[in-house]
Amino acid sequence: MNSNYHLTDLALEAAQRLRGEGKGDVPGVTVNELDVQGISVTRVQVTDEGSHSIGKAPGNYITIHAPELKYRKPRYSQQVSAVVTQEMQRLLPLSPNAQVFVVGLGNWRAIADSLGPRVAAKVYVTRHLGQFLPPELAGGLRPVSSLSPGVLGITGLETTEVIHSIVRQMKPDALIAIDALAAMDVERIMTTIQIGDSGIHPGSGLGTKRLGLTRQTLGIPVIAVGVPTVVHAVTIAANTIDLLVRTMAQQVQYMRFMQPMAAINKRDLIQEVLGEAIGNLVVTPKEVDVDIEEVARVIAGGLNGALHPGIEQSEVMDYIR
Amino acid sequence: MNSNYHLTDLALEAAQRLRGEGKGDVPGVTVNELDVQGISVTRVQVTDEGSHSIGKAPGNYITIHAPELKYRKPRYSQQVSAVVTQEMQRLLPLSPNAQVFVVGLGNWRAIADSLGPRVAAKVYVTRHLGQFLPPELAGGLRPVSSLSPGVLGITGLETTEVIHSIVRQMKPDALIAIDALAAMDVERIMTTIQIGDSGIHPGSGLGTKRLGLTRQTLGIPVIAVGVPTVVHAVTIAANTIDLLVRTMAQQVQYMRFMQPMAAINKRDLIQEVLGEAIGNLVVTPKEVDVDIEEVARVIAGGLNGALHPGIEQSEVMDYIR
Amino acid sequence: MNSNYHLTDLALEAAQRLRGEGKGDVPGVTVNELDVQGISVTRVQVTDEGSHSIGKAPGNYITIHAPELKYRKPRYSQQVSAVVTQEMQRLLPLSPNAQVFVVGLGNWRAIADSLGPRVAAKVYVTRHLGQFLPPELAGGLRPVSSLSPGVLGITGLETTEVIHSIVRQMKPDALIAIDALAAMDVERIMTTIQIGDSGIHPGSGLGTKRLGLTRQTLGIPVIAVGVPTVVHAVTIAANTIDLLVRTMAQQVQYMRFMQPMAAINKRDLIQEVLGEAIGNLVVTPKEVDVDIEEVARVIAGGLNGALHPGIEQSEVMDYIR
Amino acid sequence: MNSNYHLTDLALEAAQRLRGEGKGDVPGVTVNELDVQGISVTRVQVTDEGSHSIGKAPGNYITIHAPELKYRKPRYSQQVSAVVTQEMQRLLPLSPNAQVFVVGLGNWRAIADSLGPRVAAKVYVTRHLGQFLPPELAGGLRPVSSLSPGVLGITGLETTEVIHSIVRQMKPDALIAIDALAAMDVERIMTTIQIGDSGIHPGSGLGTKRLGLTRQTLGIPVIAVGVPTVVHAVTIAANTIDLLVRTMAQQVQYMRFMQPMAAINKRDLIQEVLGEAIGNLVVTPKEVDVDIEEVARVIAGGLNGALHPGIEQSEVMDYIR
Repeated sequence: MNSNYHLTDLALEAAQRLRGEGKGDVPGVTVNELDVQGISVTRVQVTDEGSHSIGKAPGNYITIHAPELKYRKPRYSQQVSAVVTQEMQRLLPLSPNAQVFVVGLGNWRAIADSLGPRVAAKVYVTRHLGQFLPPELAGGLRPVSSLSPGVLGITGLETTEVIHSIVRQMKPDALIAIDALAAMDVERIMTTIQIGDSGIHPGSGLGTKRLGLTRQTLGIPVIAVGVPTVVHAVTIAANTIDLLVRTMAQQVQYMRFMQPMAAINKRDLIQEVLGEAIGNLVVTPKEVDVDIEEVARVIAGGLNGALHPGIEQSEVMDYIR
Repeated sequence: MNSNYHLTDLALEAAQRLRGEGKGDVPGVTVNELDVQGISVTRVQVTDEGSHSIGKAPGNYITIHAPELKYRKPRYSQQVSAVVTQEMQRLLPLSPNAQVFVVGLGNWRAIADSLGPRVAAKVYVTRHLGQFLPPELAGGLRPVSSLSPGVLGITGLETTEVIHSIVRQMKPDALIAIDALAAMDVERIMTTIQIGDSGIHPGSGLGTKRLGLTRQTLGIPVIAVGVPTVVHAVTIAANTIDLLVRTMAQQVQYMRFMQPMAAINKRDLIQEVLGEAIGNLVVTPKEVDVDIEEVARVIAGGLNGALHPGIEQSEVMDYIR
Repeated sequence: MNSNYHLTDLALEAAQRLRGEGKGDVPGVTVNELDVQGISVTRVQVTDEGSHSIGKAPGNYITIHAPELKYRKPRYSQQVSAVVTQEMQRLLPLSPNAQVFVVGLGNWRAIADSLGPRVAAKVYVTRHLGQFLPPELAGGLRPVSSLSPGVLGITGLETTEVIHSIVRQMKPDALIAIDALAAMDVERIMTTIQIGDSGIHPGSGLGTKRLGLTRQTLGIPVIAVGVPTVVHAVTIAANTIDLLVRTMAQQVQYMRFMQPMAAINKRDLIQEVLGEAIGNLVVTPKEVDVDIEEVARVIAGGLNGALHPGIEQSEVMDYIR
Repeated sequence: MNSNYHLTDLALEAAQRLRGEGKGDVPGVTVNELDVQGISVTRVQVTDEGSHSIGKAPGNYITIHAPELKYRKPRYSQQVSAVVTQEMQRLLPLSPNAQVFVVGLGNWRAIADSLGPRVAAKVYVTRHLGQFLPPELAGGLRPVSSLSPGVLGITGLETTEVIHSIVRQMKPDALIAIDALAAMDVERIMTTIQIGDSGIHPGSGLGTKRLGLTRQTLGIPVIAVGVPTVVHAVTIAANTIDLLVRTMAQQVQYMRFMQPMAAINKRDLIQEVLGEAIGNLVVTPKEVDVDIEEVARVIAGGLNGALHPGIEQSEVMDYIR
């Protein structure tokens, strides 16, 4: 999770919201959907023009929605891994010897924020093997490295600066950054994987200028893989208010009561429900530990397939560490 | 957390709700408050008569509210431990050689439910030391044992049956059971410790009869120590609706609009906001891992002080394992 | 690991030692070997007569030696799991609805002793599912429960007493106990799985009488599954001395120098090399954490196959939790 | 642990061995000892001249030997922390605002190698706090950051290159690197803390040139803090042979038998005792997990005292995270 939370981090949710608001198709935003055995794949393409309306950087955003992931069925998980592999390959064409750097963003001490470090720890790292590769795999493995730099609060270091300095030193051909996200919709928690090629743009924060992780700043392709692991409690409260107001408006014939509504301060209401810790409260499944481990395995398996052509699809999970 | 969640588990919240509903003092429910250096201690006594109104078994419920616990300041934590020691001693007078069995309830795989196992793992266990006790402590240590039996979902065993069979075998003089709770109010998460002497009464569940952990069923005093680690997401949504309706009612002069309100189905609204996983969603602080560890240390320190008179108050945290 | 370490815990090593000492076949001890794709399986049968010579309780001891387990190759691990399944089924014929209780012995805080708890946490537990079983599996799953009772040092409770009281309460049809062992030979560390049907016989300890976990004491079949995770440092030192003395004896034509050898106190030598912590020192692979996790997976997979006929051999690892 | 293990990593052991071999005082190696309440502190100074004889880079090596650390007594641990603080301040004089970078070397997946990452995770990190410091501490806290870069085998990255590139970017005023060591003598396991100012010099490895972490290569003072967490099994076997041979030589009047001894190949003997995994076997205490956690706390406490003058000695452990 980036330090500056947005109420939504998913491009698909942003596009749906715009449509939901009756704005129809948004110019510069193309949405394509396909369905693979109960797994829906939505490809959102955002041009410069669409970027402003949707509030997302221009680029491709692939959303894999796999609602049954939460049941942790081995075969289903493997299918989702295969979809990750395939979409990753679409977004990131790699030469046979391309060196790839996998970065696990987030705080491993905060369970819902530990997705990135978990994936980085599981992906099959090979950069150091060189000539010591298992012979049956030589030729089919790209040099992959991985690191989880932690977050500012536990290292005292700006994460993106750490990554920039390592990239400058080791000169990988591509960067893949994994991060936990916050969604608007609870149905997306632990069931949706977003893969994008527009990089990671940190919030502008408290007046400080933060470096992004993008092709512009790093000089190499940057793929961001994110999974909503929480919905902010604020979102739940806000959604509840919106829905209630909408419901009432439909039921009351004359809209007169909407005037007093205007006087209601939504922000104050939410503050009163959530108290002082308001920004610090998140909504997660009870067994967030088990769920997040499974999603991390699925992504690591998907990356193994995309990065190492020598590993067959049926074995990508076997190379998880 | 018990398998059957109540929207509230705190006696104090129940009492406050009744008063909040304008019912004034509830017969059979006595509430006393004191304040120790920023830590409020509320002692609620529930008689048979009060039991029904408040929805809690008759007995004593002590609520220690320590709002600054979340800052994890060592001295403050130690003060809270001292209050736990003192209140525990009030509720559970023990003979010098009384054997005490500490049970950590809950699921160590689900972070918010791992409070009990964490405390059980930290408390100073001495039952096996016998004559091998550190000489400077002999005489000042009671024989203490501890166990975390897990939950039905991970062991396949009814937790209370496991405890009953061990108690029958080893015949301790008292049982202390630690458990994570769900609160109504987010301000209570990780800041409130409830200590009660009425035992643990599992919900009636899906038609199955569950054995409680009480003085009646076990034949020894049973002290329950609980800390709210979550608020159910359902509670947040419900609280938001209630507050919004109340606020609007105040603002609108003529109450006419309350009629359509009646037609609004609160349950459906919440279902729509929270989706299918509704009962499975909890609200926690982002750093639930760190917070729960600190509360577990505070309780383990408090138990060390209460169970082992030979350990000085300034050192109770030193004997945490 | 039991609290009282034996220099060897493997029946096969005991039999080999006897033969190594030129005693040839030992009456009452039958040894059969077979080889399955690089995995050797040795079945040692000990009668009452053989029990005394070999220092093991009468019964069957199956030793699965899989030297490549340490490379953690998925397919090899699955083959070893299949052998565990098959040998387990030979030793423990079960009726279709037999209720099985899996107990993880050992201390999860001491990495080399955490094998039992790891297996118990991974095996597929079903006893509580009852009618809620996944329909495709109903009929093919036996009711399995599992528990890791910890060790005396962390609970203050005699482990075998805890198990006895739970068995008395829940009346399973068979008990499977997993434990870490100490071997004589470093080649066996993390590569050998011993399965026996003679139960677990705790050392006599410091004058205290300990209850065993056997068919006699529990009234049900007891299968012990053990893996050497360490060799005691004492064993390494003793083996070194023995080998050196033997080597020198061979090289020196006249045996005169053996007289002074007699005066050398082996125990004192070892004490001097290993110092005060002598009994507390163990030899393990550097990456004991990773190795033990893999062996635990292999055993849990093997148990899934043996206990749940509805799970196909190719999927036993998928049901590991 | 560095990837290339030396049979000893402690300067003090090297100096003692030379003296033990009857070489008396070694020119260029000064040894001073003091004793603080059962904690011995030995300061070894190695000049360029002494460097060659002792096989250590020129510099200061402080060895804190605290044999009772293994009992984990809180007050004793705090005393050892105080000694760490004091010796650290002697070796590393810092300006009030000096920025310090703490690096945890080693592999957190291999328990005995996880000391560095544990200390790095516990030390009080403040670099990011800036003006948000707790007011009572402002002025007394230096900007401290910390990172555990992992090891080549899990990241695919050369650890020292990662550190070099981060140092180049963030320009700290000093580097403190924590690492697990291998000792010659089992008595030193988990009881000895070595602090040195000569940096970290990686072995020359398999023909590859590795960058060191030294004042020369980094341009800032480098303090290395190491604790022996293992003795190589090879060392145990070799020590046993040496001692046995020495003992026998003393007992046998005529030294004739020493001739055949010469024919004994020590290396082969050890290989036979330790088998194929020989270089991979280490000797550790059974409860290495608990022991290493305690030593990590002691060092983190010591660093808190040395780096943050605003933290009183009695509270250094309180700021451990």
